[in-house]
Amino acid sequence: MGSKYPRSMRGCLPLWTLILEAALIVIFFFFANYDSSSQDPKKIVVTHGAILQDVMVMAALGMGFLTSSLWRYGWSSVAFNLFMLALGVQWAVLLDGFLEHPPSWKVVIKLSRIQQATMSAMSVLISAGAILGKANLAQLVLMVLMEVTAFSAMRMISRQFLVADNHVSMMYIHVFAAYFGLTVAWCLSRPLPKEAEEKEQRTTSPSLFAMLGTLFLWMFWPSFNSALLTIPHERKNGVFNTYYALAVSAVTAISLSALTHPQGKISMTHIHNAVLAGGVAVGASCHLIPSPWLAMVLGLVAGLISIGGAKCLPVCFNRVLGIHDTCGVHYTFGLPGLLGGIAYIGLMVHKISWSKNTMLGFQVLFDTGVLSLSMAMGLASGLITGLILNLKIWKAPHVAKYFDDQAFWEFPHLAVGF
Amino acid sequence: MGSKYPRSMRGCLPLWTLILEAALIVIFFFFANYDSSSQDPKKIVVTHGAILQDVMVMAALGMGFLTSSLWRYGWSSVAFNLFMLALGVQWAVLLDGFLEHPPSWKVVIKLSRIQQATMSAMSVLISAGAILGKANLAQLVLMVLMEVTAFSAMRMISRQFLVADNHVSMMYIHVFAAYFGLTVAWCLSRPLPKEAEEKEQRTTSPSLFAMLGTLFLWMFWPSFNSALLTIPHERKNGVFNTYYALAVSAVTAISLSALTHPQGKISMTHIHNAVLAGGVAVGASCHLIPSPWLAMVLGLVAGLISIGGAKCLPVCFNRVLGIHDTCGVHYTFGLPGLLGGIAYIGLMVHKISWSKNTMLGFQVLFDTGVLSLSMAMGLASGLITGLILNLKIWKAPHVAKYFDDQAFWEFPHLAVGF
Amino acid sequence: MGSKYPRSMRGCLPLWTLILEAALIVIFFFFANYDSSSQDPKKIVVTHGAILQDVMVMAALGMGFLTSSLWRYGWSSVAFNLFMLALGVQWAVLLDGFLEHPPSWKVVIKLSRIQQATMSAMSVLISAGAILGKANLAQLVLMVLMEVTAFSAMRMISRQFLVADNHVSMMYIHVFAAYFGLTVAWCLSRPLPKEAEEKEQRTTSPSLFAMLGTLFLWMFWPSFNSALLTIPHERKNGVFNTYYALAVSAVTAISLSALTHPQGKISMTHIHNAVLAGGVAVGASCHLIPSPWLAMVLGLVAGLISIGGAKCLPVCFNRVLGIHDTCGVHYTFGLPGLLGGIAYIGLMVHKISWSKNTMLGFQVLFDTGVLSLSMAMGLASGLITGLILNLKIWKAPHVAKYFDDQAFWEFPHLAVGF
Repeated sequence: MGSKYPRSMRGCLPLWTLILEAALIVIFFFFANYDSSSQDPKKIVVTHGAILQDVMVMAALGMGFLTSSLWRYGWSSVAFNLFMLALGVQWAVLLDGFLEHPPSWKVVIKLSRIQQATMSAMSVLISAGAILGKANLAQLVLMVLMEVTAFSAMRMISRQFLVADNHVSMMYIHVFAAYFGLTVAWCLSRPLPKEAEEKEQRTTSPSLFAMLGTLFLWMFWPSFNSALLTIPHERKNGVFNTYYALAVSAVTAISLSALTHPQGKISMTHIHNAVLAGGVAVGASCHLIPSPWLAMVLGLVAGLISIGGAKCLPVCFNRVLGIHDTCGVHYTFGLPGLLGGIAYIGLMVHKISWSKNTMLGFQVLFDTGVLSLSMAMGLASGLITGLILNLKIWKAPHVAKYFDDQAFWEFPHLAVGF
Repeated sequence: MGSKYPRSMRGCLPLWTLILEAALIVIFFFFANYDSSSQDPKKIVVTHGAILQDVMVMAALGMGFLTSSLWRYGWSSVAFNLFMLALGVQWAVLLDGFLEHPPSWKVVIKLSRIQQATMSAMSVLISAGAILGKANLAQLVLMVLMEVTAFSAMRMISRQFLVADNHVSMMYIHVFAAYFGLTVAWCLSRPLPKEAEEKEQRTTSPSLFAMLGTLFLWMFWPSFNSALLTIPHERKNGVFNTYYALAVSAVTAISLSALTHPQGKISMTHIHNAVLAGGVAVGASCHLIPSPWLAMVLGLVAGLISIGGAKCLPVCFNRVLGIHDTCGVHYTFGLPGLLGGIAYIGLMVHKISWSKNTMLGFQVLFDTGVLSLSMAMGLASGLITGLILNLKIWKAPHVAKYFDDQAFWEFPHLAVGF
Repeated sequence: MGSKYPRSMRGCLPLWTLILEAALIVIFFFFANYDSSSQDPKKIVVTHGAILQDVMVMAALGMGFLTSSLWRYGWSSVAFNLFMLALGVQWAVLLDGFLEHPPSWKVVIKLSRIQQATMSAMSVLISAGAILGKANLAQLVLMVLMEVTAFSAMRMISRQFLVADNHVSMMYIHVFAAYFGLTVAWCLSRPLPKEAEEKEQRTTSPSLFAMLGTLFLWMFWPSFNSALLTIPHERKNGVFNTYYALAVSAVTAISLSALTHPQGKISMTHIHNAVLAGGVAVGASCHLIPSPWLAMVLGLVAGLISIGGAKCLPVCFNRVLGIHDTCGVHYTFGLPGLLGGIAYIGLMVHKISWSKNTMLGFQVLFDTGVLSLSMAMGLASGLITGLILNLKIWKAPHVAKYFDDQAFWEFPHLAVGF
């Protein structure tokens, strides 16, 4: 069984990744060196180290286990997530250095750069949720390279031409990654056979793992949203607002999930996704929101949109377009991210009408531009990546092998997947 | 199956929680705003942020998974825990501000306030352990409101009238919450049918999750105990003493569990509960204990009491009173908490006899008062809450549906709970 | 069933551990007191506290769950790990104080000391991986005492007579612990019956727990490697290099695992072990490596060695010598640790040839001495411990009961292990 597919993996994947890894080492050899300024006070090292670690926990544990609820696909979810993260971070550090302004050929590695690279690499982990179980590891490697490049380019453009700051351009990661992932999923879409759909059903046992991932993301989200805020006052507000938005979206999501079920039962899948919507929605504007009730309203609306999306999108949107969004990336990250972008623009408009400053008018225009850019870049680069991934050379898994750990993993004890 | 009960959930729960959320947002709108003093040094933000996160991990992950060992009830344990936490924190922040001295109508939200609110909300998570599986989510929502109010009132009284400091009044959370939970469980008690008892049996598979919860609590307990200590020297001692007490109680609990079993086997349930007893027992006095051996002795005695309680209480105490304590809250938090209170009073007495200061005599009287108050408030408010929860309007789950995830959760794949 | 063995546990273990715990309390009473210098700035408390917590998470969660992938042995892995950690830390704190230079009879307990004690106690957790499932708790208690003593003695000798600094002497923990564990496993080795081998097979369900342990170790490894580096500049480099080495070894391990399987499938066991090899290999030299590409090469080679070891060692080495290395400690910690030691010496040689300083020649000689010493001490003390553990008085589990939770744990629901 499965004799054709794995051979290809053996020939293709290790060769491809080891060459890539060697190339990365060579690039690092020529272009990267450590920040030799030793005047950094110890405090900075500790602070940045703590935030880096929080982001790391979210990326490796949170994103990994969040998507682990597929039946017979938990191993791949978690391990492929680690693989993509480890690869993406290396590539993102380099790109981040090359694309900075003024451009330089020497990448100086600092803690803050690794932290941003980890956040950039999370875009791949988000997008991967949409195509999980339908692509092999070699395809995912290509996606890592393409997406990190596109995301870094998007950030560079929005910082240099649209005057967006570091924080805001990073916070559109959710919109970018969700639409990137959806477009790739659309390109890869093939009618799922009956068994694949059944296999995709979630079981309860891995769901507690998924809950673990959700909780890790939920707990560390305030760190993520405030990671790039440098003014203490703004960072504090960022933490507060994220905290409130998350609390309200958790309560809203659980209640609404019961409301939308004909018998008042709660759906675990809804919880995994909608609980985080508040944090996504408040991302871009978390440092600007002046009082908690606004963050709470955003959390409430985000929870509403997310549960609404989870109910309607698979039926209306996805079926019409033929997109199969494995882990519900669209309503977990896409829609709340859009809401967050709109909220950010609204807050800027409010600020203008209050200060009568016409210069701010341009700012709003630029802000709208950043949101549109991140969505457009996500769709465009997703389309290109999807088309490349569709080539025969990647030997994508056969539809009958979708969502199946057995295609990739050695099971010591018979061939029982679960 | 289960057609009657869920309908009621659908009608009752979402309406009830969404109105509540809306009310909270309105209250925040009128009464809460952010701390606008921007002179906070960055260091404070980082320090407080780190402690807040530790407490958060304990509340969301630790308490959630600690109680996840019920067969067929793991989903509810973890998700309801998150729900209660998210709701409780919002309410506790408001109360904490309203009840402070001097009373004010404007709640200023600070990191330290959110941290204390998270700790206050943990009282609900502890109490919920006693009635888990026997109440629906609407009942738990009411319990959150009642218990957080009672606990905040208790802390306010003990600080203002009994000269207790912030730290000590918080550390009696275990005693308060345990007796609150037990009284509610007593009010809700109904003879369990044979199947419900069987369903309550723990399985091994979720138990590793419960072990995960235990470990998270165990690791972060020093942060919890030292969170409200502001003098560096006291905080350091708090961390040390908690660390030692936990280490000794872990060793003691595992050994004693083997000793009390006729065949020398260790019980996983004992481990989950008794391992933490040391941290609870050392809570109130952790900053006063002058040398490690005392903390170790406290840890030893706490482990002993906790295992003894786990062996005797369900047979003697609970059966006579008709209390059904689902997760053993009484011997995990109640008894070690009492021991901790007595140890604290003992240390104060010792201090007096050593310093010959008669003013301290009053202090001891007050300290005894705080301990009695927290226990009395727990019992009284628990009784009121229990009586209200017993009303028909809550449509509590039928005894046959106790400890059953299926009553609350949608299972995509057939209706298999496990 | 199993009526003979458990009786012995009941008689032996609790008596033995409670006496030990009492003895420890008495020793602490006479010889230990807290650091009463209150001039420690708050910053230090916070910094050291954060690192202590990271190391704690690695020890309790990471090491505990890493070894939890044995079928029917998950409970024992995690709980015995906690037990050994709690006991080991108490003993290590005392030894660390007694063996310091100048020798003193008063152990002053500081945060940095507890942190080092936790790291020393990890040596036992590593070694235990080799004999897991083949020894009872009483035997493990003895191993804790023996190994922590030997490791502290080794560190004391290498610091005083071989001029090794605190960081380097700690980083040889992997080599020491791996060879200690292997020697003990060799002493305890008995031909495994057919069923025991089958029982040793790993199942998928616990493997996600093992993945959790791996991820926790992976994420916090930079903290571990930089914990004892006091110069901010060196610590930063330590974090960077460990981060890169881990990222590359993760990518390498997953790719190579597919390459070495005849059908290109990835083995979960390889992932659990080899992913960490980079962190181990870079340990001793992480503060000296001047640029990222070197750390990446080390990570690549470590991943290669580790996967190679996992493929060859069980067949060639272990079968010939009759060692049964339950969790692959040899290729997870032993071989990458040796590579790290050689890399460290190589870097020192490079430094000399560059600076033409003849004094450094002695330094290299000493460094080689430290590596040899840690390996020799590991083998010698492992042999002594193994011989003592082989005595009849410990009533070791019968071969038929190897890898079986049932021998140690009470199962409430029938006697189903899994």
